[in-house]
Amino acid sequence: MRSRDLFNCTDRDRAVFEAGIKLASLYHQYIGSPVNPENAGHFETAMEEGMKAQPFVSTASVSVDRRILKASLSPYGYCSLNERMLEAKVEIEYEGWRVRASLGWVEELSYPLMKIDDIKKPAK
Amino acid sequence: MRSRDLFNCTDRDRAVFEAGIKLASLYHQYIGSPVNPENAGHFETAMEEGMKAQPFVSTASVSVDRRILKASLSPYGYCSLNERMLEAKVEIEYEGWRVRASLGWVEELSYPLMKIDDIKKPAK
Amino acid sequence: MRSRDLFNCTDRDRAVFEAGIKLASLYHQYIGSPVNPENAGHFETAMEEGMKAQPFVSTASVSVDRRILKASLSPYGYCSLNERMLEAKVEIEYEGWRVRASLGWVEELSYPLMKIDDIKKPAK
Amino acid sequence: MRSRDLFNCTDRDRAVFEAGIKLASLYHQYIGSPVNPENAGHFETAMEEGMKAQPFVSTASVSVDRRILKASLSPYGYCSLNERMLEAKVEIEYEGWRVRASLGWVEELSYPLMKIDDIKKPAK
Repeated sequence: MRSRDLFNCTDRDRAVFEAGIKLASLYHQYIGSPVNPENAGHFETAMEEGMKAQPFVSTASVSVDRRILKASLSPYGYCSLNERMLEAKVEIEYEGWRVRASLGWVEELSYPLMKIDDIKKPAK
Repeated sequence: MRSRDLFNCTDRDRAVFEAGIKLASLYHQYIGSPVNPENAGHFETAMEEGMKAQPFVSTASVSVDRRILKASLSPYGYCSLNERMLEAKVEIEYEGWRVRASLGWVEELSYPLMKIDDIKKPAK
Repeated sequence: MRSRDLFNCTDRDRAVFEAGIKLASLYHQYIGSPVNPENAGHFETAMEEGMKAQPFVSTASVSVDRRILKASLSPYGYCSLNERMLEAKVEIEYEGWRVRASLGWVEELSYPLMKIDDIKKPAK
Repeated sequence: MRSRDLFNCTDRDRAVFEAGIKLASLYHQYIGSPVNPENAGHFETAMEEGMKAQPFVSTASVSVDRRILKASLSPYGYCSLNERMLEAKVEIEYEGWRVRASLGWVEELSYPLMKIDDIKKPAK
């Protein structure tokens, strides 16, 4: 069985859908994790590798904003990973389609927005 | 500012993207929650209402498979919500587009598949 | 097999340990959940019932601070459950010991503190 | 303000309570994360460093059982981190007390047990 047979949509739709899945997975899995300036790099690596482990992800990058992180530290020297400091980019490849999407805090919306940055189907 | 200005895609793409976000949010937020036959209904309600609180969700339903739940109970009478027992359906409405998507365990793939079930733009 | 045989501690220690487990479970499971003034009550119920499902919990109460919640809402009318708005109390009963513990934001520490409020062994 | 002033218990109680917090934090934060044999090491490091970032943790080790991991892989080559594959040890030091505690699947209980392995107050 191929999962493709279970979808009722175009390949472009599927590629876009997968992009949404990956960004929301990241956010809702790791928000709340205990981070500090020393371990943030390890978290970034684990989160990136976690994205790359999922289907149709060609590239992924995750970063924790160190300026926000430092401003959020408790007297214990760490804080919970929050929506203002988590940033990510992902590229999906599916049946020739490439979708780039990203997650980041948008101050004007006061919201951690997940958005589509580019969709294309390169000529082979 | 409207979030729409930050997207580089069609309205259909956006609707599909939002569907992926909602299902992955559900999965990665709640997997691991302590459930038993008595509280499962409360979790279903909270998870549904959590989906409906998010942008562009017109309907949502979440269910915990009681048969799998009962088979997974520890001697303490509860277990962690897992990928085999969580099922959900969501409908997104965005700029006239309606996307229906769902989450559920697919035994043949041994995988909790999130999939697109229908995309349409009804005539007004 | 009883889990008690696997512990190397007193009954009082065990009761205290279980209290720590319950509060941290709550925090790290649900931080990030999509809440708004309409669904917060459903989340409180589910979180409470999730605590009560776990071993040795005699009572539990969870509340989402509505003032903080309303101040945190995005333009979409909801926000992610965060460390400043989640409050909980739990009582553990284990082999005659009763431990009360709580979770709440402490402004002076800028920290969501989990603390022990009372430990006693009532005469029968 | 010291958090100690807010606790109503002995130093031993506090040390034990903190051990419970750390193990439950780990479990409920990361269960559901996308793991595979290639990224599991990165997750172990991030989870360990996340434990060490928290107050009063002197040592921590986390491992993902590779045998269970491999047996749980979906056709996509990864799976969600689950209760059967996550193992951890932590040592708390608080006001002279040392508490060792651990998390691991106990087959006889069909349960991911968090337990206290040792409590002592070494002579200085």
